[in-house]
Amino acid sequence: MKSIKAKEGQIFDIELEEDLLKRNEELARKNRILLDKNKVRAIDVMGSVGSGKTSLIKNLVSRLKARYRLGVVAGDLTTTIDAERIKEEGVEVIQVNTGKECHLDANLIRRALKEFDLGSMDFLLIENVGNLICPAEFPLGSHKRIVVVSVTEGPWMVAKHPYIFSEADLVVINKIDLARAMGVSVKTIGEDIHRVKPGLQAVLTNCLTGEGIEEIIKVLFL
Amino acid sequence: MKSIKAKEGQIFDIELEEDLLKRNEELARKNRILLDKNKVRAIDVMGSVGSGKTSLIKNLVSRLKARYRLGVVAGDLTTTIDAERIKEEGVEVIQVNTGKECHLDANLIRRALKEFDLGSMDFLLIENVGNLICPAEFPLGSHKRIVVVSVTEGPWMVAKHPYIFSEADLVVINKIDLARAMGVSVKTIGEDIHRVKPGLQAVLTNCLTGEGIEEIIKVLFL
Repeated sequence: MKSIKAKEGQIFDIELEEDLLKRNEELARKNRILLDKNKVRAIDVMGSVGSGKTSLIKNLVSRLKARYRLGVVAGDLTTTIDAERIKEEGVEVIQVNTGKECHLDANLIRRALKEFDLGSMDFLLIENVGNLICPAEFPLGSHKRIVVVSVTEGPWMVAKHPYIFSEADLVVINKIDLARAMGVSVKTIGEDIHRVKPGLQAVLTNCLTGEGIEEIIKVLFL
Repeated sequence: MKSIKAKEGQIFDIELEEDLLKRNEELARKNRILLDKNKVRAIDVMGSVGSGKTSLIKNLVSRLKARYRLGVVAGDLTTTIDAERIKEEGVEVIQVNTGKECHLDANLIRRALKEFDLGSMDFLLIENVGNLICPAEFPLGSHKRIVVVSVTEGPWMVAKHPYIFSEADLVVINKIDLARAMGVSVKTIGEDIHRVKPGLQAVLTNCLTGEGIEEIIKVLFL
């Protein structure tokens, strides 16, 4: 089978792109310094559309808000659907609309951080734009990055997206109640994860029932 | 709720981005001229990871290959999983690996077109990279663009991605057998589609059983 690799004939100017990524990394470092100065731990939640990022964040907020002071950034192209859902939990939410852009970047997070009173916050949860590709290349300055996948995304979502999983500190495999109906093996997804990044931890969840949420809290918040 | 819009503080240089999109459009026009000269109709299949793009193309190819001469371009970041699955149907497949890029572009398609014998082809099916955001801005020169969504992507996938649906000529709503288990209303998805683009046709499918495939053939191939 004939195969074409993008690198040889990309329409993008690779040097410009590298420059852009470098600028993003600098701003991410500055964000981290600001967060550390205020003793805020930030977690970047990535994953495809419908994987369950908002449901996961709602679950975490509802269990943690009595213990910690929390803030949330909700990234989305144009709507406020996710931000409104999270706001129901009674925490401060800053909405970031990226327009046509497919990921949050460190500059947008820098602007969002200015809107919070960081001195009275323990954890910041950042919901990235629903996309399994682009957010990987744009660190935001968070302390941890997690990827949420749903078994309904089929059996190849890990193998097809090595970059984002190699960037991750934790994988959440969501909607496990639908694995049988989908004919998808959670065990195989786990094996694919370890092939991409040996030792990367995966937690199985059902964000409708709350299954698995306490385990994520143990890993990320205790 | 505080809201931040990306346009005001984008890390991207907007002029550079516009230049890039303009270059892509020029190449897309050239692709279209080449396809028309060879009387090849091209269809760009977009949609998120696991929505069923490959299964849809396999279904179409298996029903159409006796009637028409077909070619397929399979876009993917790094793997050949989709291309291998389509090749089982016995048609010519060109694999395009985009690396870290989140969409096919007109330049990659220009290169793929050179690999086919266009004079002996009726239809070209292009499977775009699994992503509901970025492919929208990069027309490839195809005659039709279709978006495949799965009900397992949750109830908001249309409302959250207005750009890609406004670019589409047809929407395929796949995995409809799972709508009830997901608590997702196919009717509401249809209403969202018409809110984004009045008159845009949607076909309901189950690509495992072949339900709905003949209707797509009537719309796109007859």
